[in-house]
Amino acid sequence: MTIALYDLVGADEARPFSPHCWKIAFALAHKELEFKSMPVRFTEIGKIESGAFKTVPAIRDGERLCVDSFQIALYLEETYPDLPPLFAGEGSKALSRFIEKWAQATLTGYIGPSLVLDVHDALGPADQEYFRGSREKRFGRTLEETARGREERLEGFRASLLPLRLMLSEQQFIGGQRPLFADYIVAGIFQWARVISPFPLLAAEDPVAAWFERCLDLHGGIGRRVPAAC
Amino acid sequence: MTIALYDLVGADEARPFSPHCWKIAFALAHKELEFKSMPVRFTEIGKIESGAFKTVPAIRDGERLCVDSFQIALYLEETYPDLPPLFAGEGSKALSRFIEKWAQATLTGYIGPSLVLDVHDALGPADQEYFRGSREKRFGRTLEETARGREERLEGFRASLLPLRLMLSEQQFIGGQRPLFADYIVAGIFQWARVISPFPLLAAEDPVAAWFERCLDLHGGIGRRVPAAC
Repeated sequence: MTIALYDLVGADEARPFSPHCWKIAFALAHKELEFKSMPVRFTEIGKIESGAFKTVPAIRDGERLCVDSFQIALYLEETYPDLPPLFAGEGSKALSRFIEKWAQATLTGYIGPSLVLDVHDALGPADQEYFRGSREKRFGRTLEETARGREERLEGFRASLLPLRLMLSEQQFIGGQRPLFADYIVAGIFQWARVISPFPLLAAEDPVAAWFERCLDLHGGIGRRVPAAC
Repeated sequence: MTIALYDLVGADEARPFSPHCWKIAFALAHKELEFKSMPVRFTEIGKIESGAFKTVPAIRDGERLCVDSFQIALYLEETYPDLPPLFAGEGSKALSRFIEKWAQATLTGYIGPSLVLDVHDALGPADQEYFRGSREKRFGRTLEETARGREERLEGFRASLLPLRLMLSEQQFIGGQRPLFADYIVAGIFQWARVISPFPLLAAEDPVAAWFERCLDLHGGIGRRVPAAC
């Protein structure tokens, strides 16, 4: 049965952009599960599945509902143990949490503020109002002030990717020779940036860029189905 | 049979200090394997086991020799699969490499230069000469210049531990409810700092400090057998 993935979009529903939803799109493709991306806007999340969710990604798999990217990945691993592994063992589940937090602190910590206006500009009017209000409250300043200085902070951001860069000198994926959910945790965030903004996050010659291109090639190029922002 | 761990020491052979050797001391204790710490000084490494090694940690397990902390951990996991797991699955082996690189970039990147004089001062005369020569060549400046400014850089270092701190709000160890080798990769580095210098690396109220204390409590408190530097 086809799994429904509630997938965040803006004004253009052919361009899902949420990093956490992308983690799950990659994970479902990795598991070779049929799924359908169900476009949802920020202000519609509370209405799907009779108000079952406050956030996306969320999935419906037959009678079962599941929300939160990490919980969904765990659900898929447990429910479909004979399909390609997302974790490959119990230890990797715990260690993937560390990578999630690293990505949150290092990637989202830079990308979130830096691309906040790009996200805003990709939304429809009702979502723009919600987004501006909630994010200006979160950051304690206007979206314009939040994004300011991203060029000056870019060098520091690129330097902060050193752990990934060092690792890529020894293995092709965070998962080793093949990707695991840990790769999608990080690739989902880069895909968010790729879909939402032409801002040059990675230097072309960075091994991290080559790894992300490998992630975009995976599973029939599912990540490339949405062209990069321009 | 008792495993021999070639373990880096300075002037006081009761105080092994190498982060990489500590990773393996923790790993051997975790596997509940009997081992003996064999003190080796920097300038003696080339002489052990008929010149088999250029670095420590190295172990002799019966007829088998193994060198490099990560390789030793993999060897122990493969050789003693029925003893408590250091990785708990294949996925964790690859992900532990990411954590190793994060620790190298974030922890060693700050601690190495900052405590370089403390290491020097803990060595005997022959080792001090070797250490000063090799490290001044590596850093391109004197040990004194290398360590300078560590107080000013401390706040940034503590901030860089955010991924670990975020993760510790959800789980007790990097390995989840129980430690895995990934914990020892990081704890070995903090133990190096603890043994070599009284410099206050972690704020007392930092959850990272509480996690490190938990690591020191493990396996009969093996990490506490060497008192903290004072």
